[in-house]
Amino acid sequence: MVHNGIEYGDMQLIGEVYHLMLAIGINQEQMANTFEEWNKGELDSFLIDITKDILKFKDSDGKYLLPKIRDTAGQKGTGKWTAIAALNYGMPLTLIGEAVFSRCLSALKNERQKASQVLPGPSKKFSGDIKTFLEDIRQALYASKIVSYAQGFMLLREAAAVHNWDLDYGSIALMWRGGCIIRSVFLGQIKAAFDKDPNLRSLLLAPFFLDAITKAQNGWRNVVATAINLGIPTPALSTALAFYDGYRSERLPANLLQAQRDYFGAHTYELLGKEGTFVHTNWTGHGGNVSASTYDA
Amino acid sequence: MVHNGIEYGDMQLIGEVYHLMLAIGINQEQMANTFEEWNKGELDSFLIDITKDILKFKDSDGKYLLPKIRDTAGQKGTGKWTAIAALNYGMPLTLIGEAVFSRCLSALKNERQKASQVLPGPSKKFSGDIKTFLEDIRQALYASKIVSYAQGFMLLREAAAVHNWDLDYGSIALMWRGGCIIRSVFLGQIKAAFDKDPNLRSLLLAPFFLDAITKAQNGWRNVVATAINLGIPTPALSTALAFYDGYRSERLPANLLQAQRDYFGAHTYELLGKEGTFVHTNWTGHGGNVSASTYDA
Repeated sequence: MVHNGIEYGDMQLIGEVYHLMLAIGINQEQMANTFEEWNKGELDSFLIDITKDILKFKDSDGKYLLPKIRDTAGQKGTGKWTAIAALNYGMPLTLIGEAVFSRCLSALKNERQKASQVLPGPSKKFSGDIKTFLEDIRQALYASKIVSYAQGFMLLREAAAVHNWDLDYGSIALMWRGGCIIRSVFLGQIKAAFDKDPNLRSLLLAPFFLDAITKAQNGWRNVVATAINLGIPTPALSTALAFYDGYRSERLPANLLQAQRDYFGAHTYELLGKEGTFVHTNWTGHGGNVSASTYDA
Repeated sequence: MVHNGIEYGDMQLIGEVYHLMLAIGINQEQMANTFEEWNKGELDSFLIDITKDILKFKDSDGKYLLPKIRDTAGQKGTGKWTAIAALNYGMPLTLIGEAVFSRCLSALKNERQKASQVLPGPSKKFSGDIKTFLEDIRQALYASKIVSYAQGFMLLREAAAVHNWDLDYGSIALMWRGGCIIRSVFLGQIKAAFDKDPNLRSLLLAPFFLDAITKAQNGWRNVVATAINLGIPTPALSTALAFYDGYRSERLPANLLQAQRDYFGAHTYELLGKEGTFVHTNWTGHGGNVSASTYDA
């Protein structure tokens, strides 16, 4: 199941990259060549390889087949199943979540067509250097892929903890290289990371991936910010970045959330340095602890 | 359930705004004054009001209480329930999804603390005009809130279609004004939109909200792009923007996804203009339709 969820994520990431290339005016031949080039490096994988084949494929009329295909994605449910498991185990698999929701949004084609005639977007055009930006896109794809796999392994780890399973994460990565859709050089790096440290807490903290994401970071931020300014949706690339920034935040704004829950529902909260002790505050100072009629939050 | 999911979203959005204000150096008194000001306009609501109270609240030592509270969010499960329902009904409620996952990430406090010492971020500092940027933040919050409610009503609409319910969406909005945590002036605007057009397909297409989001758009994009460049996580603000850009896209990259699924799993695909007819292509041109051993995607 986690394999298939990750596969949804990989496909969504490649789709966003394709969309962005289209939007900045890369023609399909250049795209195919770019994917072919990428397949010789860190991104070497079955899905990048077949994307190159698909981009190159011409219909019987001599024109590219890809642009003729309807942009509504089907699904058999394994990505959804992974996202639901993530919610139930309390693990933030945001990238797979966005990948599944993106398929849902693609299915609302009639509604999108109507909305496209009404909802305005920015009028900016891409003005950067194409070659530099394509390398930034490659970095964004690679960094987001690292986040997605890190999230997938978080779910495995949590399920192992809950069910008292003894999982060999390196072997799982190796198994996914055997004929699976997500097979890649990348999985070999994951195997190597777990071989070096079987108790690795997160793939993001393995020296190899830490180094990769450190190098990728500037390009990644540039790609997502550029897409936002051009009005191109990149939900998976951007949720991966938000996760990265959240994961490396010692402090998140959940203190405010705890205060809100205590204000309206007397849910109590913990103080920093006094974990395990739950206190309540009468925030309004004028009596009455609960200020709303529904307070299950 | 949808009320509570939306409440998770509203709280997450306010949390991100608070986090961003902190990061750009707004002090807590200024924050409280900003929320107080916001509560007089379009954002007038119970949650903005109590956030102002919380920001103003001082502990017995004369110092603000909020920064002393532990940043790990609890939950009782209704947000998760909404996200799972969204996945099962195939409706892209991305903002509530991110809000639930953000609570999950906040709970991994020990892991975040370790990661914060290892994972690098950008070294940029905020250099814009604070007053202008605070107005941009207000616009970003308002626009994201419109998206979140539009998504919530999409789920209600889909459930109504599946179960053959006759839902009065305006009355639902009105009901949520009655003592509920998400009570706001905003819900009155939703009621008015459904009164004008009971068959409204999406809140985003109602003239009032279309106008609001059109005005908010530049500030919204600036806030998310700035947060990305500063390394501040804004998962809900940015997923709302990605949804907006996806929803107004006549073409999404799901054509590539359909081609990939046909390539590795012979799942077939539809051509534009020939909906309902499913075709398969032998993409490799050299025999053998299926190139991977697992192909449920």
